Amino acid sequence: MGRASTSPGALTVETCVSRYEPLTPDTLPARLGDLASVADAVGGAPETWRVEEVGDGNLNLVFIVEGSAGSVVVKQALPYVRLVGDSWPLPLKRAYFEYNALIRQENVAPGIVPGVKHFDEDQALIVMEHLVPHIILRGQTMAGREVAGLGQIMGRFCAETAFRCSDLAMEAGAKKGDVALFSGNVELCEITENLVFTDPYFDAEMNRHTAPQLDGVVAELRADTALKIEAQHMKRAFTARAETLCHGDLHAGSIMVTDTAVRVIDPEFAFYGPLSFDIGMLMGNYLMAYHAMSAHLRDRTDCAAYQTWLLGVTRETWESFAGRFRQLWQTERKGILYPSALYEDQGHGDAAERACDELLAEIFSDLLGFAGIEMHRRILGLAHVAEFDSIEDPDIRAPLEERSLRLGRDLVLGRRDITDIETVLDMARARETGEGQ
Amino acid sequence: MGRASTSPGALTVETCVSRYEPLTPDTLPARLGDLASVADAVGGAPETWRVEEVGDGNLNLVFIVEGSAGSVVVKQALPYVRLVGDSWPLPLKRAYFEYNALIRQENVAPGIVPGVKHFDEDQALIVMEHLVPHIILRGQTMAGREVAGLGQIMGRFCAETAFRCSDLAMEAGAKKGDVALFSGNVELCEITENLVFTDPYFDAEMNRHTAPQLDGVVAELRADTALKIEAQHMKRAFTARAETLCHGDLHAGSIMVTDTAVRVIDPEFAFYGPLSFDIGMLMGNYLMAYHAMSAHLRDRTDCAAYQTWLLGVTRETWESFAGRFRQLWQTERKGILYPSALYEDQGHGDAAERACDELLAEIFSDLLGFAGIEMHRRILGLAHVAEFDSIEDPDIRAPLEERSLRLGRDLVLGRRDITDIETVLDMARARETGEGQ
Repeated sequence: MGRASTSPGALTVETCVSRYEPLTPDTLPARLGDLASVADAVGGAPETWRVEEVGDGNLNLVFIVEGSAGSVVVKQALPYVRLVGDSWPLPLKRAYFEYNALIRQENVAPGIVPGVKHFDEDQALIVMEHLVPHIILRGQTMAGREVAGLGQIMGRFCAETAFRCSDLAMEAGAKKGDVALFSGNVELCEITENLVFTDPYFDAEMNRHTAPQLDGVVAELRADTALKIEAQHMKRAFTARAETLCHGDLHAGSIMVTDTAVRVIDPEFAFYGPLSFDIGMLMGNYLMAYHAMSAHLRDRTDCAAYQTWLLGVTRETWESFAGRFRQLWQTERKGILYPSALYEDQGHGDAAERACDELLAEIFSDLLGFAGIEMHRRILGLAHVAEFDSIEDPDIRAPLEERSLRLGRDLVLGRRDITDIETVLDMARARETGEGQ
Repeated sequence: MGRASTSPGALTVETCVSRYEPLTPDTLPARLGDLASVADAVGGAPETWRVEEVGDGNLNLVFIVEGSAGSVVVKQALPYVRLVGDSWPLPLKRAYFEYNALIRQENVAPGIVPGVKHFDEDQALIVMEHLVPHIILRGQTMAGREVAGLGQIMGRFCAETAFRCSDLAMEAGAKKGDVALFSGNVELCEITENLVFTDPYFDAEMNRHTAPQLDGVVAELRADTALKIEAQHMKRAFTARAETLCHGDLHAGSIMVTDTAVRVIDPEFAFYGPLSFDIGMLMGNYLMAYHAMSAHLRDRTDCAAYQTWLLGVTRETWESFAGRFRQLWQTERKGILYPSALYEDQGHGDAAERACDELLAEIFSDLLGFAGIEMHRRILGLAHVAEFDSIEDPDIRAPLEERSLRLGRDLVLGRRDITDIETVLDMARARETGEGQ
């Protein structure tokens, strides 16, 4: 696998060293200054570029590079988990999977992910569009600011990536080729396999939770054998249902927004998985934001209004997903599954619609399982969310976390019986007002 | 991917030409005579070897090579479908997938598949153990001869390959590596995707059925939209549920038997698919043999006794599968799914057993779908089975085929409600005696 780039000109550049070496703000201009695709976007002499390292995630170096013409983001993988240190190695090739996911996502759902300007596999770095003045979604929601069109855009993005990267739309050989390609993302899948699906459900070493306030409910969940079985059934779906190219980590820190714009970043966890995975994880994040809200918007009227908006986003995300998925089913079902030769061409167009209904029902059922598990692991596992973690007083934080934990369990265990999004919103409201359980 | 062999000595042999060229009985001794692994097994001077081409399958050249010490089988892929001719090209690399499947099957279920003596990727040829005096299972059943232990052995083989090549047992990276490897078997999967799951359910060009006798029931099945939807749901499972290494073509021509021995051959359709796929296809073949039997054993008492044996084999295959699967669950569940850390280590061994029950119930439900579809495609599609095709009188053949067609539909549509093997056997008996429908 050689160096690649979306800019043909960049392929001839020979200044990159072939041995991996982490960039620093000081070395970046000299090392990337000769790349036409970068230099054009930033502008001016490289030695005048302003470079800032802003990585606040768990895994990578992230630089913002500014010059006279504009700015770009340079993201470079580190050979270990930044959050933990070099005691937890993580392969550089994740940049290869992120790059491959970004170009596919741009292809099937244009305009949502950052534009890629350059990819260097040896250096595990991607130069991409700088999204400005965007902030991460959870920053926006914690501040109580709405995002126009959020649910509609995210539902559409999830539907387009799910449908168009599956056997519903792709040529079979190309889809199997992508399954093979992304099967290499072993280590990042392993993080999800352990931290999301397993560790939260027993007393694993890296877990933490708000103690002692949550000790009771945590013990209750870990003694709930039906829940533990269902979580592993969902893990089996994660590991084996190679239905479509999933973003793999679509939480509220992988979405960047302004009041009126929505973008999706960071698909380094990309893998072939269930049609329901990304939207399920996203739904779990919406519902945690909902339960955390009263700690961030202290005015009860403001909070109630914002929570109503958040539930509306949850509804709109599903409705947008289902609507767009059905539209693609009707217009772009050119893959090997449910071929029109079998339905429309035989005067059985109604059967094609029923098959779509059944598939959407299956996706809905599964997304509830993934949503509930995401809500558990963010409160019981290693990686928490700022919506809860930023609530300093544990006596305020714990009861809000408990609402999400209990709702999560109800979604996982009820996922085969809950058939519409309004029921989910009612369950969330009931937890919030103490009417649940 | 270079030439490989199970015999280290063979790796140094340089006489094989690197350009693919089909073997003939005349050229085979000179071309393979220098391979130590072959020469030792056959014995004597290569020019004294007796070589016979015996390929009666649809796809390949198959030679039996005999000498003073014994015999071997040489199987060489042709670059097209033998049954159809060079108008239907098929890649030589299927030999690579067959070789890779054979060595894995031998590893996880020893003694069932033929031992591999040599593999030459460039020549798309595998030299393997000659199974003698075995005949294909359908030859044995059509003659009304029993096979001691058939159900027990086949259930065990299906369970061991299913369990041990899945995330229940394998190291996660190795399993993902095998998913990637077998994702390359695009063209042979495509045959199944088209000929098994789709073509039988509409008036596709290569289909044939006993006409006009079956025209009515064929029209009825092709108008059954619920059936067509379910068949495509099963196809989606085939294309996306990368749970384990499937043989991929486990019909009664891929099983070789004596009165007391059972072996499995020809895994060139190998792919990563559902835990239920192989045993489902096999069950469909048992049930077709059952319905065809009255045309092959004209004595009614003999026929009834043999049919009772066939249904017993069907039961034993499932019971052996379920029993062995559960045993492996209890003793070899070292993969990433349903880890003992979550169950046994927490005093929740009962939950692990329940999870196994639920997974076996899911496998059972899915295998009924695959069985029913196999029964349809063998009567409505391109590739038929000798059990029916050898019945010369269409007025005798058609009603027996109709029983299998109707039972197949009932299995596909009833698969979520049928929970035990006895119900399946009762359904088959009812079709045979005209009590079904």
